[in-house]
Amino acid sequence: TPKLQKLFLAVAACDSSGASNSGCESSKESSRSSTPVLDTDRTDRLRDKMRRRTESGDHWFSLEFFPPRTASGAVNLISRFDRMGSGGPLFIDVTWHPAGDPGSDKETSSMMIASTAVNYCGLESILHLTCCNQTKEKITGYLSKAKRLGLKNIMALRGDPMGADWEEEEAGFNYATDLVKHIRCEFDDYFDICVAGYPTGHPEAESYDEDLRHLKEKVDAGADFIITQLFFRADTFLKFVRDCRAIGITCPILPGIFPIQGYQSLRQLVKLSKLEVPEEIMQVIEPIKDNDAAIRNYGIEQAVGMCRVLLESGEVPGLHFYTLNREVATMEVLRQLGLWIEDPRRTLPWAVSAHPKRKVEDVRPIFWASRPKSYIYRTQDWDDFPNGRWGNSSSPAFGELNDYYLFYLKSKSSKDALLKMWGEELTSEQSVYEVFTSYITAQPNVAGHKVMCLPWNDDPLAPETNLLKDELDKVNRRGVLTINSQPSINGKPSSDPIVGWGPPGGYVFQKAYLEFFTSSENVTALLKVLKKYEPRVNYHIVNVHGQNTTNAHDMQPNAVTWGIFPGREIVQPTVVDPVSFLYWKDEAFALWIEQWAKLYEDESPSRMIIKYIHDNYFLVNLVDNDFPLDNCLWQVIDDMFELLDNPPEEQPAEQTAEQPNDEQSDKEQPGK
Amino acid sequence: TPKLQKLFLAVAACDSSGASNSGCESSKESSRSSTPVLDTDRTDRLRDKMRRRTESGDHWFSLEFFPPRTASGAVNLISRFDRMGSGGPLFIDVTWHPAGDPGSDKETSSMMIASTAVNYCGLESILHLTCCNQTKEKITGYLSKAKRLGLKNIMALRGDPMGADWEEEEAGFNYATDLVKHIRCEFDDYFDICVAGYPTGHPEAESYDEDLRHLKEKVDAGADFIITQLFFRADTFLKFVRDCRAIGITCPILPGIFPIQGYQSLRQLVKLSKLEVPEEIMQVIEPIKDNDAAIRNYGIEQAVGMCRVLLESGEVPGLHFYTLNREVATMEVLRQLGLWIEDPRRTLPWAVSAHPKRKVEDVRPIFWASRPKSYIYRTQDWDDFPNGRWGNSSSPAFGELNDYYLFYLKSKSSKDALLKMWGEELTSEQSVYEVFTSYITAQPNVAGHKVMCLPWNDDPLAPETNLLKDELDKVNRRGVLTINSQPSINGKPSSDPIVGWGPPGGYVFQKAYLEFFTSSENVTALLKVLKKYEPRVNYHIVNVHGQNTTNAHDMQPNAVTWGIFPGREIVQPTVVDPVSFLYWKDEAFALWIEQWAKLYEDESPSRMIIKYIHDNYFLVNLVDNDFPLDNCLWQVIDDMFELLDNPPEEQPAEQTAEQPNDEQSDKEQPGK
Repeated sequence: TPKLQKLFLAVAACDSSGASNSGCESSKESSRSSTPVLDTDRTDRLRDKMRRRTESGDHWFSLEFFPPRTASGAVNLISRFDRMGSGGPLFIDVTWHPAGDPGSDKETSSMMIASTAVNYCGLESILHLTCCNQTKEKITGYLSKAKRLGLKNIMALRGDPMGADWEEEEAGFNYATDLVKHIRCEFDDYFDICVAGYPTGHPEAESYDEDLRHLKEKVDAGADFIITQLFFRADTFLKFVRDCRAIGITCPILPGIFPIQGYQSLRQLVKLSKLEVPEEIMQVIEPIKDNDAAIRNYGIEQAVGMCRVLLESGEVPGLHFYTLNREVATMEVLRQLGLWIEDPRRTLPWAVSAHPKRKVEDVRPIFWASRPKSYIYRTQDWDDFPNGRWGNSSSPAFGELNDYYLFYLKSKSSKDALLKMWGEELTSEQSVYEVFTSYITAQPNVAGHKVMCLPWNDDPLAPETNLLKDELDKVNRRGVLTINSQPSINGKPSSDPIVGWGPPGGYVFQKAYLEFFTSSENVTALLKVLKKYEPRVNYHIVNVHGQNTTNAHDMQPNAVTWGIFPGREIVQPTVVDPVSFLYWKDEAFALWIEQWAKLYEDESPSRMIIKYIHDNYFLVNLVDNDFPLDNCLWQVIDDMFELLDNPPEEQPAEQTAEQPNDEQSDKEQPGK
Repeated sequence: TPKLQKLFLAVAACDSSGASNSGCESSKESSRSSTPVLDTDRTDRLRDKMRRRTESGDHWFSLEFFPPRTASGAVNLISRFDRMGSGGPLFIDVTWHPAGDPGSDKETSSMMIASTAVNYCGLESILHLTCCNQTKEKITGYLSKAKRLGLKNIMALRGDPMGADWEEEEAGFNYATDLVKHIRCEFDDYFDICVAGYPTGHPEAESYDEDLRHLKEKVDAGADFIITQLFFRADTFLKFVRDCRAIGITCPILPGIFPIQGYQSLRQLVKLSKLEVPEEIMQVIEPIKDNDAAIRNYGIEQAVGMCRVLLESGEVPGLHFYTLNREVATMEVLRQLGLWIEDPRRTLPWAVSAHPKRKVEDVRPIFWASRPKSYIYRTQDWDDFPNGRWGNSSSPAFGELNDYYLFYLKSKSSKDALLKMWGEELTSEQSVYEVFTSYITAQPNVAGHKVMCLPWNDDPLAPETNLLKDELDKVNRRGVLTINSQPSINGKPSSDPIVGWGPPGGYVFQKAYLEFFTSSENVTALLKVLKKYEPRVNYHIVNVHGQNTTNAHDMQPNAVTWGIFPGREIVQPTVVDPVSFLYWKDEAFALWIEQWAKLYEDESPSRMIIKYIHDNYFLVNLVDNDFPLDNCLWQVIDDMFELLDNPPEEQPAEQTAEQPNDEQSDKEQPGK
């Protein structure tokens, strides 16, 4: 019935005959379960994402950073990536400073910062690379390393010649065009390549037209898009785009936006880039040059105005911001433009890594929920990542976490700040309980300081955990030291602002989860209580020595978060996996010592108290499988307290067989 | 705290140090997603299942069948396997008849029947094998073939010597012991081996004690368990077990139970097996020998009484029944003993194949829900089976289904019966609609015959589909010819008698599904209506020529049945996969011709009507993604009818662009 044909708009890739013939048979070898279910974006290259966003008319933004000078600057920059990443940039880029050992493994190198942004912050990233005064071998080495680290995009630049005696080299890199050609030659189409455009012409170019011709050469050599140098008038950029189009440059051209943030930084930048600040701007700024706030406000206003003109021109699909590694001005401009995504949709409950190897990953153990960077670090050598299902206990080994001071794993707080939060001096286990309680309730501790983090949690309590605040408060006071929890959820819309994730139109579910440290006395009572909750509650209890008990059937994982979406298979992004738990417990126990005990003098009572907890407490996780019912885990804890408060009359025989004499162990305990 | 150690009963396989060392690292290569989630039984050998059931004190039963003589006998036996399989036998076994070409590919061979039981009926099966007068090469050939077909258990027998001149061969097989040794020698531990025991001694043995020694040899040679010849008194068996234990036979010994079902069959069996029927039984039977019902009732009563004694003895973990390929007597005995499982728990919504290669399979497309044997047949060559997730459209190719007359795919009904149900003569499409309506409503057709099957469904409507009966009735009357559907389910207990499946304590869910054939006129209206239901409803519409349209995102599968269980990952056993649908449509359309049109003379109006539908109708599937809400698919169909009944005023321009002139096609249609 050919008459109907015109109705069939979306014709499937395989038609009847194709499906039963070679077209599909050739894919018989392919692994069935290696397909991403959630977000096709994750498989795509930056240039494809850019094209789709441009086609949809949906404006976007990107952010430029430079590498930090110090290790603590690196820690700060990474947490800035996390904060600014939440606003939804299409990508970030990291500049390259030949003098700063940019390709090294130092925590301040361009290479490590960009790699961390991709792997640990989940940001699509562009690494800058300059070529002048570099050998081809050196450049190829940098590119190979970048590729190995999961970087997929390069901003190809000439860079500033070092020294006055620089001359063009015969077979070397003299222009960015040479670098673009080299990348395409050595790495084929692997990298997306960006090049720089100069709306007023490159300062060293013979002329504006000559510079445009150079830009055309760069694009013809294989660049995918252009980011421009900063400029101060929308017209400057719009004329530049017209001129580019006129000579046949068809790729995207992104305007480089520089919100003026201070008098000194403006002067410095202008000097370096040999740009001229328009008279009308200087006239405003000069009179207020000592008033930072006034200049910043003007900068925001000026940038917003210019961006509005650019976006309304229809020539600008997205805006590129020179942040100078600062947050406030850029975020404010983006907010005023309506481009900052206040409440970004989460693809999964956890931030997806941008490393291409991890693109199919959609299941993780819940234990690292507050330490995703540690999880990524410890699994970085895996050949494939769990997809669709975690699988059984024969999961790949986790890498050791011996260095808790890697810059991307390090606490954002200084030792001083930590001591204020966690106590200059601890006098008993009770004072530890109070730290947990202060953290949970967001109330100041006895010394008047708010506890903003714990060793297991470098951020304040998540909005979701806030749902459990009262119960958490109550149990922490009595030494059930919670470090991870989630409420049960029986089918909330995937768009729910607190617990939602995944594509629209879906429903998300959770089983209630609770993880805590507690004393062996409590565990003794808890195990008796848990018998009443079989098989509703799954538990896993382990101490630092590896003594453990669980009722996990065949050591199988338990899915505790899942989502049902239109036209998709089921997604189950978090599991409680009994085997992973034994890897996690090493890390969880070590954090007592590495992050907390070591704040105090060796042999000091404070350190001994933490050491005692580390050596004697158990780490417990509980799952309530009956997600449609009210969470029973609080009742489990209440029952445990009840049993401790009102122990049944003891049979002499039972005492020997079942109850360790816990009175004794109290005497070994310091600080009581 | 070693004091606590005694509390930790269930010590995990990996302790702290083991987990971070080689123990788990060696499993890094293993595929994460290849683990069965649901039923550990599925990975186990028969002897392990038997051991576990015995240890649990949970009595079980098994069933013996002989291969049929005719092809239609094979069809009947296979559907008997399905019915008797639903009662929960631990295994079935299929006897070996050297004269009947037992190792061939004929549909009546022992080999094919046992293979079908395993692969298509999901039954753990034992293939008998006799060795006398056979070369080692021949026997090895049979065993290799059995292994290739997925058979894992062999009953090793000598068999009856053929001809009077049989003599022991020097290097050949003279006793079952030789066969057991040969299997262990050639196939190591691959097969579980069963041997025969004779409670009153083998008729050819020199003595009872001599025979016991032979049995000991068979067990020592590598047999895993023993099934006995039939007997008539519990004491006979219990003495035999004591005697076996006394000489060191420790393996399970299963009593062979023969419910007397008729005078002639009893006499014949007794003659063949050289057994003596006890006087007290003959005294009851002789007087009623012409009253079949009376004998059968006596046989049931006698068997039940004997089985009770056996089970109460504590020596008998399970009962083996000689069924003589009949159902009634054995089922009745089992019911009276409480061993027949009336409402077996389903592991998954569909019957799991017992082939070891398929043991991890836990996802299938919904299309073959009523034709699981066809699905198994078409996927038999797959190297691995979907587990945890179906994966994307690059699924392995389905085998062609050219032969709709394979005995395990064949309709149970004769051509005559089909003509009575589906009409001796069709006069219009309407008469086809009426066949569907009769099937749905279980009301007799115009000729007074109940329609018990359709080409797409060889069984009466499932209880689950009954939930939708009224709606199905209504739409089929108007030419929406439904062949598959399920209601939406928002978290019913896994123990629900109609829709439940999987382990206890879980919750099952479904998205509403509807699949039907309908005319191109209806499809034109339907596509307009479906625009209102984006993205709530996913659809896929295709005709026999492969013209198709879908709104499936990226051709991804949609999970339509899933379950959440304590301590497990999510299980999602059925999906709507757009690519598989294109394979299914070939089969679904072919059934019109192969099973229905071919009932009628070539060129007859009846055949032409079916042919017209085959050539012009579309196959449609619809999924309502909003499973917590009321199923909207009926509303979609109602809207379609509404649009057809009250078409909007047509704009001249639209008529050309969007609406094919469907009036024309009516004229080409025969029988109107």
